[in-house]
Amino acid sequence: MREVTVGFSVLRAAGQARAGVLHTRRGDIPTPVFMPVATRAGFRHISMDDARSTGAAIILSNTYHLLDQPGPEVFATFGGIHQFMSWSGAVLTDSGGYQIFSLPGERRIDERGAHFRLPSGRRHLLTPESSIEMQQAIGSDIMMALDVCVPSDRDEGRTRDAMITTHAWAKRSLETHALHRAGQALFGIVQGGVHPALREESTAAIGALPFDGFAIGGLAVGETRAEREAMTLLCARALPPHKPRYLMGVGTPVDLLEAVERGVDMFDCILPTKMAQQGWAYTFQGVLEAKRPAMRHADGPLELDCDCLACKTQPLAYIHHLLRVGSAQGVRWLAIHNLHHTQRLMTRARDAILSDGWPPFYAELRERLAQRIKCPC
Amino acid sequence: MREVTVGFSVLRAAGQARAGVLHTRRGDIPTPVFMPVATRAGFRHISMDDARSTGAAIILSNTYHLLDQPGPEVFATFGGIHQFMSWSGAVLTDSGGYQIFSLPGERRIDERGAHFRLPSGRRHLLTPESSIEMQQAIGSDIMMALDVCVPSDRDEGRTRDAMITTHAWAKRSLETHALHRAGQALFGIVQGGVHPALREESTAAIGALPFDGFAIGGLAVGETRAEREAMTLLCARALPPHKPRYLMGVGTPVDLLEAVERGVDMFDCILPTKMAQQGWAYTFQGVLEAKRPAMRHADGPLELDCDCLACKTQPLAYIHHLLRVGSAQGVRWLAIHNLHHTQRLMTRARDAILSDGWPPFYAELRERLAQRIKCPC
Repeated sequence: MREVTVGFSVLRAAGQARAGVLHTRRGDIPTPVFMPVATRAGFRHISMDDARSTGAAIILSNTYHLLDQPGPEVFATFGGIHQFMSWSGAVLTDSGGYQIFSLPGERRIDERGAHFRLPSGRRHLLTPESSIEMQQAIGSDIMMALDVCVPSDRDEGRTRDAMITTHAWAKRSLETHALHRAGQALFGIVQGGVHPALREESTAAIGALPFDGFAIGGLAVGETRAEREAMTLLCARALPPHKPRYLMGVGTPVDLLEAVERGVDMFDCILPTKMAQQGWAYTFQGVLEAKRPAMRHADGPLELDCDCLACKTQPLAYIHHLLRVGSAQGVRWLAIHNLHHTQRLMTRARDAILSDGWPPFYAELRERLAQRIKCPC
Repeated sequence: MREVTVGFSVLRAAGQARAGVLHTRRGDIPTPVFMPVATRAGFRHISMDDARSTGAAIILSNTYHLLDQPGPEVFATFGGIHQFMSWSGAVLTDSGGYQIFSLPGERRIDERGAHFRLPSGRRHLLTPESSIEMQQAIGSDIMMALDVCVPSDRDEGRTRDAMITTHAWAKRSLETHALHRAGQALFGIVQGGVHPALREESTAAIGALPFDGFAIGGLAVGETRAEREAMTLLCARALPPHKPRYLMGVGTPVDLLEAVERGVDMFDCILPTKMAQQGWAYTFQGVLEAKRPAMRHADGPLELDCDCLACKTQPLAYIHHLLRVGSAQGVRWLAIHNLHHTQRLMTRARDAILSDGWPPFYAELRERLAQRIKCPC
């Protein structure tokens, strides 16, 4: 493991879209890159080996969920999350900001930090400082600064207040991080809702700080697709070109493609595994509902030219059967396929950018990926 | 795949206990042998590769559940259950008798067969003939004759009626089987509840028929442990010595040991995977509750000298964490361990019998396996 924080190289661009390499202490990662979400230091339906088999080089885990289970002391015992969960790739941890925003119960945010209840019911105050300390205990390779996320329908005044707090917390996060760097990288998060003026102000403020990379936060929280794409473009354009750009919590295969077009390098989303739980499979011909009766006798793979573990070893009819009887194994096979598909989408996008073929690739796939297909045969 | 049905060789005995080899068309299987239960042509929490890793050479699947999902036509498409679920080992299918007995809803049994509703709600008549035909479509290596199972508290008269029907159905099963053997083996099932006279009568009647092996059915249905052990001994003693003996649906590690002592060669039970769902792990020191707070920092394996996939790759604290957060992966690791433990128990019992060490082995383990332990450390 190299004792460097994150570096980033852009290899080639096609308009705003870019192909690059994210240099981490756990190896170089080609971008654009998708990070599967292992919320609680693990996936629900797939193993770490399964995740590795999909081509994932970096995964995301959630500070909020890890705070009281297993808790920082357990990470101390193991020397970090990698050893704890047997994952040798890179790990990015979010700060807890988004989880606190999306909590169903009571929460209060003041300048000091966020007051809320943990999943166990225990009261907790999460500050920018304590979030960094928790992420240091977790030992992730990329940490996120604590931010204040607001719903997209919040008025401009209150969205601005949240943004101002986010900017103050960003500086406090950097100060805490400076005390004990230990090879971890730290990313800042841009806020500002769907208000262009606020997004510009936030991008300028956060983009001027010495973070290792920058995230576009506060999207995928109720705004329209047009708003999301406009805000993504606005932020990505104004962020420092030599640093990686990460769009948090987005999205469908088409959403990823649209964001790459607008200059985003990194993604995380629960959709590939969540769609698997609903019985949906991503393919390059469109989305397939694997539970439909048409799949009952399908003795070929889910997707013909796919070399994921599911397509290489399981007939679609068997995955269909497992889904029909409610077996977690059916979800596992679809989750492996969907995550592998998402990695392939990133690889293909990168290859298209590197070979000057991005515009036709983008034009064709944005139509194709959005389709619903009835059967792979 | 050899075109032979099942053969059986006893290599050595220690009292009633015996070590042998079950010869199947999918290879020789050392006995005593434990068959993990893949009810619906699959396990809920582990993959077929996981099952293989535990050392399982033969697994059980349920005709009743497979009747309407995926249904016989799908097995025809695939040329049998092995190709459908990617399992190259042997498969035993039960006849549906036990499932019909344990159905919560309406059912009616007459001489013709069992009238009941399938999981989908569809009405169905399962006869000895149609059960064999369904098992032929499934393509299992060992089929079971349809029987009538009754609760242990049923009076002697009604238990006798069920037994008489079971005997008639056994003959009809053999007749149907004779029409189209295709390399599959067929086992008969002894009934008779907890009534010694009926058990003797049933063992004599079924044991005289040209089955490839014999099962002791109608136990693990509410009787006491003493009753179960007495009935097991009574049946096993009177069954043909050169044929395999299979005790259906039993049981805990101690129950398996007690049955081996009484002359049983084959077992199936959902307990190893069901206990995993409850967070319980089998070890040779006793049963361990992996969710207990004491496991939180346990950085070693669940069981020190165990070479299952879980113990070789996962610290106990991580399995504990996954169980605490309700991840299916936690159940997966425990299920792998518990199934592997059960296979090891069979192997150790066999080695003890072969090396003339059965009595002390049996005496020591019947005490040890029943213990509850607090921590492996």
